[in-house]
Amino acid sequence: MSSSERAVQRLIYVTDLGGTAVFAFEGALIAVAAHLDLFGVLVLACCTAFGGGVIRDVLMGQLPPSALRGWVYPGTALAAGAFAFAFASSVHVPPKLLLTLDAAGLALFAIAGADKALEAGVYPLSATMLGTITAVGGGTLRDVLLAQVPGILRADIYATAALAGSAVLVICRRAGVPVTIAALGGGLTCFALRLLGVWQHWQLPGAS
Amino acid sequence: MSSSERAVQRLIYVTDLGGTAVFAFEGALIAVAAHLDLFGVLVLACCTAFGGGVIRDVLMGQLPPSALRGWVYPGTALAAGAFAFAFASSVHVPPKLLLTLDAAGLALFAIAGADKALEAGVYPLSATMLGTITAVGGGTLRDVLLAQVPGILRADIYATAALAGSAVLVICRRAGVPVTIAALGGGLTCFALRLLGVWQHWQLPGAS
Amino acid sequence: MSSSERAVQRLIYVTDLGGTAVFAFEGALIAVAAHLDLFGVLVLACCTAFGGGVIRDVLMGQLPPSALRGWVYPGTALAAGAFAFAFASSVHVPPKLLLTLDAAGLALFAIAGADKALEAGVYPLSATMLGTITAVGGGTLRDVLLAQVPGILRADIYATAALAGSAVLVICRRAGVPVTIAALGGGLTCFALRLLGVWQHWQLPGAS
Repeated sequence: MSSSERAVQRLIYVTDLGGTAVFAFEGALIAVAAHLDLFGVLVLACCTAFGGGVIRDVLMGQLPPSALRGWVYPGTALAAGAFAFAFASSVHVPPKLLLTLDAAGLALFAIAGADKALEAGVYPLSATMLGTITAVGGGTLRDVLLAQVPGILRADIYATAALAGSAVLVICRRAGVPVTIAALGGGLTCFALRLLGVWQHWQLPGAS
Repeated sequence: MSSSERAVQRLIYVTDLGGTAVFAFEGALIAVAAHLDLFGVLVLACCTAFGGGVIRDVLMGQLPPSALRGWVYPGTALAAGAFAFAFASSVHVPPKLLLTLDAAGLALFAIAGADKALEAGVYPLSATMLGTITAVGGGTLRDVLLAQVPGILRADIYATAALAGSAVLVICRRAGVPVTIAALGGGLTCFALRLLGVWQHWQLPGAS
Repeated sequence: MSSSERAVQRLIYVTDLGGTAVFAFEGALIAVAAHLDLFGVLVLACCTAFGGGVIRDVLMGQLPPSALRGWVYPGTALAAGAFAFAFASSVHVPPKLLLTLDAAGLALFAIAGADKALEAGVYPLSATMLGTITAVGGGTLRDVLLAQVPGILRADIYATAALAGSAVLVICRRAGVPVTIAALGGGLTCFALRLLGVWQHWQLPGAS
């Protein structure tokens, strides 16, 4: 393995881990708001954090999924979930900070997922889909467990931002752009689209 | 590979593709009726079209699932979904035509799924289950995402028709009947049972 | 394969099968109460019985899942489901008996799942999670199909008992305790915790 391949793998690892903590924290907050007990809060923290990556790994046949290899991923998600459970009422997280961190997590998951799929030889269109699934699959699974129609299906530029970021990364990499630049391009596309969408109240069209 | 094996593989491919378009179109119409946005409509089109086949491929360990190999399957489903989104209000599809096409899709998915499972060496009872899952899994996943109890669990001769068609194909093939005749027998069983069931208002019994 | 390894495998097989019948019976009763038809009752029987083990096998990449190998597992679940469907109104099962059998099934699934994961070389923390998923995954899937928030996320010492039993088995086996004693320890921990929890109305804390 060359040093650049090692750098790519380390990038994927670190981005995955940072997004894991943010998503677990958010999932736990939503579970607390839904009056789940401690076990339910930790489950929803893990589902939100791992769901997308696990679905991606299952679909790619890379099993067991990376979330179950070693204790770092589960440990990170459980710690973030427990923190949210313990301090949900006493710590006030500014909504804009959470929104920004979530947009960063979304971008990181999308490009990490799309890149992992490309590296495994998945076709470009499918790799773009898998990047999107990595980014939004966890939140979708969480909403299903709460018996709600997943928010991403109805409103907001959220999944669309993940899709655009994944597509940019896939197109760049297929065009021979170095992976770090492709990842930056895809990640910034997703991050900027998401924040612009919230700021400008963008909505996708519904059918007439 | 002999020419008859190639014919079988081509048959499976074409039936899968035809059913994909019909199911994606139907899923998109239901998503439009549920007031989802464009992204949600395309997701539900893909889930309805691919869901059953993806669950089958995951359970059989044939990963990535056939729906993610190449761009033909995703492209077909996305095109059918986008068409339904764009013309949902201006094109009127006669309910009886949609019902008949859906019954055909159901039959095609059931026999293609059961046959693929048999070819992979799955046991007959499990192959029958996998055929049924291929046929009704997508609609079930769509209903779960819409936070509804899947219709197939409650009413109508729908899943039962898929089960009967799958069983006929499995029994015929285990008895040495040539694959084309077994597929015809299974497909017509499912198709006829479904249409007869709607026409005669057949219901499975509920518990007393 | 040594005779002790064969004994372990046989133990896993028998425990899986006993739990399958109990869980299928319970799932079918809940489906009858939700006014599903015969097909829906059999599907929910199978989902409750197999769901956890299938999710475990998918995550471990051991495909097709053991529930689809041969006819014994599906046959057992279908028979238990059909029995519940036929006699739901005429046979009265004392709630305490059902509760005790369910606690036994929970314990058996948890230790069988955790042990299978350990045997396959999964990390201890993940093996504990997989044991818990094996025990509660089926009921969770059933609740999702009924469009309800899974009970295990909200109340009762149920998943927590499965988690504790799985953890005891994993810790014992990593400490070199023979498998039969580790299984007994884990199983009794889960069984006792569950029954004590019901008796004493224990609840996990919710967030303040």
